[in-house]
Amino acid sequence: MKNMTKDIEVSNQPLKMVDVSNKPVVKRIAEAEGKIRLQQETIRKIRQGLVEKGDVFSAAQIAGVLAAKKTPELIPLCHLISLSKIDIRFSIHKEHITGKCTVIGESKTGVEMEALVGVGTALFTIWDMVKYLEKDEEGQYPHTRIVEIKVLEKRKETITLE
Amino acid sequence: MKNMTKDIEVSNQPLKMVDVSNKPVVKRIAEAEGKIRLQQETIRKIRQGLVEKGDVFSAAQIAGVLAAKKTPELIPLCHLISLSKIDIRFSIHKEHITGKCTVIGESKTGVEMEALVGVGTALFTIWDMVKYLEKDEEGQYPHTRIVEIKVLEKRKETITLE
Amino acid sequence: MKNMTKDIEVSNQPLKMVDVSNKPVVKRIAEAEGKIRLQQETIRKIRQGLVEKGDVFSAAQIAGVLAAKKTPELIPLCHLISLSKIDIRFSIHKEHITGKCTVIGESKTGVEMEALVGVGTALFTIWDMVKYLEKDEEGQYPHTRIVEIKVLEKRKETITLE
Amino acid sequence: MKNMTKDIEVSNQPLKMVDVSNKPVVKRIAEAEGKIRLQQETIRKIRQGLVEKGDVFSAAQIAGVLAAKKTPELIPLCHLISLSKIDIRFSIHKEHITGKCTVIGESKTGVEMEALVGVGTALFTIWDMVKYLEKDEEGQYPHTRIVEIKVLEKRKETITLE
Amino acid sequence: MKNMTKDIEVSNQPLKMVDVSNKPVVKRIAEAEGKIRLQQETIRKIRQGLVEKGDVFSAAQIAGVLAAKKTPELIPLCHLISLSKIDIRFSIHKEHITGKCTVIGESKTGVEMEALVGVGTALFTIWDMVKYLEKDEEGQYPHTRIVEIKVLEKRKETITLE
Amino acid sequence: MKNMTKDIEVSNQPLKMVDVSNKPVVKRIAEAEGKIRLQQETIRKIRQGLVEKGDVFSAAQIAGVLAAKKTPELIPLCHLISLSKIDIRFSIHKEHITGKCTVIGESKTGVEMEALVGVGTALFTIWDMVKYLEKDEEGQYPHTRIVEIKVLEKRKETITLE
Repeated sequence: MKNMTKDIEVSNQPLKMVDVSNKPVVKRIAEAEGKIRLQQETIRKIRQGLVEKGDVFSAAQIAGVLAAKKTPELIPLCHLISLSKIDIRFSIHKEHITGKCTVIGESKTGVEMEALVGVGTALFTIWDMVKYLEKDEEGQYPHTRIVEIKVLEKRKETITLE
Repeated sequence: MKNMTKDIEVSNQPLKMVDVSNKPVVKRIAEAEGKIRLQQETIRKIRQGLVEKGDVFSAAQIAGVLAAKKTPELIPLCHLISLSKIDIRFSIHKEHITGKCTVIGESKTGVEMEALVGVGTALFTIWDMVKYLEKDEEGQYPHTRIVEIKVLEKRKETITLE
Repeated sequence: MKNMTKDIEVSNQPLKMVDVSNKPVVKRIAEAEGKIRLQQETIRKIRQGLVEKGDVFSAAQIAGVLAAKKTPELIPLCHLISLSKIDIRFSIHKEHITGKCTVIGESKTGVEMEALVGVGTALFTIWDMVKYLEKDEEGQYPHTRIVEIKVLEKRKETITLE
Repeated sequence: MKNMTKDIEVSNQPLKMVDVSNKPVVKRIAEAEGKIRLQQETIRKIRQGLVEKGDVFSAAQIAGVLAAKKTPELIPLCHLISLSKIDIRFSIHKEHITGKCTVIGESKTGVEMEALVGVGTALFTIWDMVKYLEKDEEGQYPHTRIVEIKVLEKRKETITLE
Repeated sequence: MKNMTKDIEVSNQPLKMVDVSNKPVVKRIAEAEGKIRLQQETIRKIRQGLVEKGDVFSAAQIAGVLAAKKTPELIPLCHLISLSKIDIRFSIHKEHITGKCTVIGESKTGVEMEALVGVGTALFTIWDMVKYLEKDEEGQYPHTRIVEIKVLEKRKETITLE
Repeated sequence: MKNMTKDIEVSNQPLKMVDVSNKPVVKRIAEAEGKIRLQQETIRKIRQGLVEKGDVFSAAQIAGVLAAKKTPELIPLCHLISLSKIDIRFSIHKEHITGKCTVIGESKTGVEMEALVGVGTALFTIWDMVKYLEKDEEGQYPHTRIVEIKVLEKRKETITLE
């Protein structure tokens, strides 16, 4: 009977944020990259600015920048970081588009998750912009793929005040 | 043929945040103001606390404060700033109400966008609260206008710790 | 003594949403417009695509569309409405830019607040994009103004399924 | 007549954030606790991992951590604080579950609201996970209660950089 | 060795939303209640409108309404519901304030979580508004408690279009 | 000179949402899949429940479900859709984990973007949970990759009310 009223601490694998309170604030830079494979005709339309919903790269850049800022809301155990810069660029290739997201922050922990979320959301936005070009007759996407999302580099730097 | 596989960097006007990582953190103050023109009868009801949806100024103040905090989520290239104070006040005039939003932050960049978003959202909230008074018989708003949203002042100050 | 324990209902002007549960779902359209006054040189740079932070209209359109979707989060007593379309256009004038936001929704209540929030946020985003061009030597904005935000039209329509 | 055009400053009780700009940044810790009373059979199912919607404590921990980060968005006059750690633990008792939320931040103001919002949202999430077990035949909740939400402790500490 | 390449479906207790796609849309009403225990002096200041941060009930009502709308964002497995009405009322007692949140929605699933989140956030906001009155000399809250959060009633109704 | 005052409609590629107001509401189902490549040692730790930050799959499932609900906030031109179900599952392989997200909605437009955002955010969350295991001595991620995000299937179904 005694046992029934005893507290049982729930201890197997509680989800928890890493405590960063005693870490120094450092300037942090991270670069992430990813690709979206599209049909050549879709890429041609993007390049010529003929996509119905509008300019694909502007939409993707803004979506990526806004998503990078939302990282602590999207990735549960990420800390809120004040980002100094978010930059998203694209290069157009024969059968894919490469997106690259560079993030700079001053923080106690790295900014690679921000760069990954930024580039990932930019690529999802490209997909959304060209859905009507990529779908086949049955409404499926046999060609479209997001591939090779990776962190290109992560580094720390000293802040040099202007 | 070679050209087709060559990368093409997308470079015309990429949208980008200004890099503020090497700027010093300074105490920043901004004040923005705007007006909403309303019918005299609507202003009388607001003043007497007779608006059906409830107290117009409380709703507008809270909406403005919350929106100012959301600025980096609303204005794509704004940086996240830790705001020390947001204050929204109103003055009642014969045919309009003036809202004023003061924002204080410690940051690498100014807080005028926060003040503008704060006062703008406060004015939109006033509009929402008095919709039923401002609409004419055909459901249109011939009189209601938001006018003269401007930045009154922007300045820096030294932080004097208590 | 009895009085001290008696409940006192707080009744002066509780803030409350209008109950729309017994209203029919109707197709609703609203158009709102607003202007931002800028220096001629700034307008020239926008038109020529020479603004440092990137394409002003793309940023403003996306910011406006996203903000219109966030209306129930920004304007406290607004209902959540499923929007079928949000469209933001600009026209360039000698000393100002006019933004127009059209919103279509199927809902129990009108969508004019969504159109107002959409156009307002688009104009704030233009301001943010050209801050460095509009500021004077002392960092003030003597010329920049957002003016004449209004609802152009509000109407209901019958839904004709495709 | 003159009075009618005179400005009337709206001054009775404007809602305002406390200005913290001149306060020092200090390491702050707060612990909040709360209980949810459930039926013994529900607690047995939680303990044995037999709840249909999945693992109750994981869902509640993540919901609580994310909500604590959203505090300045939920509690209108709270300041945005960069949190270094959020930790949510549970202990299982005969007729209730106790949740405890510990928050560490470096800030100009305390983090007890973050801890309260964290533990409260964790308890609401537990309720949501076990709704189907707690409802009686008429869909009511005669037994379920959230009780005794309180701040256990609030303190300041010196930051010792690693 | 073969085993190492075999897929292992992760199946122990995946967290999942209940599928409501085949449920009918019904008008749903839920009422939740909760209390916050405060010192008599604090309650006196609230009643007289003398709280420094401004009108406590307006802030709490708006915070509660906005939070109820955010329920699917706060409680992970909740469905998005279009709410027709959210109403938050307070009654003042000798040593506590009672908050009551009524929510009406048309949905495939009940709205009691929305009512609970609404009343809970309203009570947290009251706490935030009166922190400076409730804290003792050491910055602790020996008296403040949120107690007895419960669902008063849940019911369905037929929609009668106006 | 006359030209300078003439309006210039900005028309090159305005970003715009597709108007879905005249489309019927249909039950829609979409399934998306993606993989994250990890080191074998990391996968072993995940499988044995030995990851420091806690249960990887619970965190990833909840993050994915919440992100799928946020799709219209993340992907600028997506419509808000009321989702009836979001389900995220994982299978563990020798050198990667596969995530699959199934989304059901009743809507005027497809839910594949919701499924893509759901699975993508789940995979980013896995990355975040195992960062400390995947980083090499220089803090880089030479092995970690997110690959092959695709839409497995998209279909419509008739709603059969229970």
